[in-house]
Amino acid sequence: MNVGILGTGMVGRAIAARLVELGHSVMIGTRDPASTLARTETDRMGNVPFGDWLKQNAGVRLGAFAEAAAHGEIVVNATSGSASLAALEAAGAENLSGKIIVDIANPLEASQGMPPMLSVSNTDSLGEQIQRAFPESKVVKTLNTVNASVMAYPQRLANGDHTVFVSGNDADAKATVSELLRSFGWQDIIDLGDITSARAAEMYLPLWLRLFGTFGTPFVSIRVVR
Amino acid sequence: MNVGILGTGMVGRAIAARLVELGHSVMIGTRDPASTLARTETDRMGNVPFGDWLKQNAGVRLGAFAEAAAHGEIVVNATSGSASLAALEAAGAENLSGKIIVDIANPLEASQGMPPMLSVSNTDSLGEQIQRAFPESKVVKTLNTVNASVMAYPQRLANGDHTVFVSGNDADAKATVSELLRSFGWQDIIDLGDITSARAAEMYLPLWLRLFGTFGTPFVSIRVVR
Repeated sequence: MNVGILGTGMVGRAIAARLVELGHSVMIGTRDPASTLARTETDRMGNVPFGDWLKQNAGVRLGAFAEAAAHGEIVVNATSGSASLAALEAAGAENLSGKIIVDIANPLEASQGMPPMLSVSNTDSLGEQIQRAFPESKVVKTLNTVNASVMAYPQRLANGDHTVFVSGNDADAKATVSELLRSFGWQDIIDLGDITSARAAEMYLPLWLRLFGTFGTPFVSIRVVR
Repeated sequence: MNVGILGTGMVGRAIAARLVELGHSVMIGTRDPASTLARTETDRMGNVPFGDWLKQNAGVRLGAFAEAAAHGEIVVNATSGSASLAALEAAGAENLSGKIIVDIANPLEASQGMPPMLSVSNTDSLGEQIQRAFPESKVVKTLNTVNASVMAYPQRLANGDHTVFVSGNDADAKATVSELLRSFGWQDIIDLGDITSARAAEMYLPLWLRLFGTFGTPFVSIRVVR
């Protein structure tokens, strides 16, 4: 499958590498590819410069947001939450129309210190904002509840015995995304409902951030017991 | 131990019965005991009239909010979130001073339909509101992430293999409450941090409500894997 991924950070990289490993054709999109490739410093999250990463992941191509979106039958939003709507606008509604947008981002903002808070919550969510902005696309919120490494390789934590959620208005889109998640190794995939249920998945983040703080590792997740 | 419980609903009843079973001395507080005892109808949650329940739970006493708070070395807030601050005001700061307030309530409000939303979140929490209103008390937020039956008998779900959280500013208070939780059967008790971490526990509620809706049962909880 052709997949476009918006965002060159650790989430975009982790998903891209995993998709290539599983045989998919992946283009990562960024605002300005030349500028992204010109970076020579490790970013504040400890990621090596993107150009170095790209050399080690030769199966992945880099393009502008619009090129990556055009490439994808599915488009993954792996940008930071505060940049997501602008990145998708740059990708272009015409390149997203009729397609699944897998929204992994969290609307975190750290202007008031750590842990970050949510810039939207309770009565709305980033997933809903994206669905409203791109009504011709099928937004599926998922994977935002775990760190990048665990997203791509759920078995790296508790032998994969934990839960991932999907939210979205389109049942077929959720089924397609769930199949992709199973190919990553996810075993327990819970459909929370329509895209308004993205509020629930995003509002879990403050708990995840506290658990991260308590245990000192981002390798933390939840298993829903019922 | 003497425990005062504010609230005559299913949460207050479940905690009261469990505490009596474990040998504690329990008084439940309500706004107007005569009025509470005069009720003859099953409430909208399906609970039998309180007077009937009290006959079956002879070890529990009923009093006004202030009497129950005065009785307790520990006071449990088991009122609905929208009524909590008023109930605690009625209980009286003088009856709560120096004591642990175990805050189980969730600030849910359903004025915009179901599932309910939070009336406070992200930048504040009910736990913090209570702590600010009663600075001489030690608020510990806990148990708000599961239903009443599971609170009191965690082993009724997944053999108790799931997680409960505590948040609060006072380490000794959290230790005392954790001991009580262990006596209920809780095995995995995670200290999320100071009372600001009550935001995280309360903001989990929208996810719990969606899981309730998805599975059609309130017997749902999470196990933190790490």
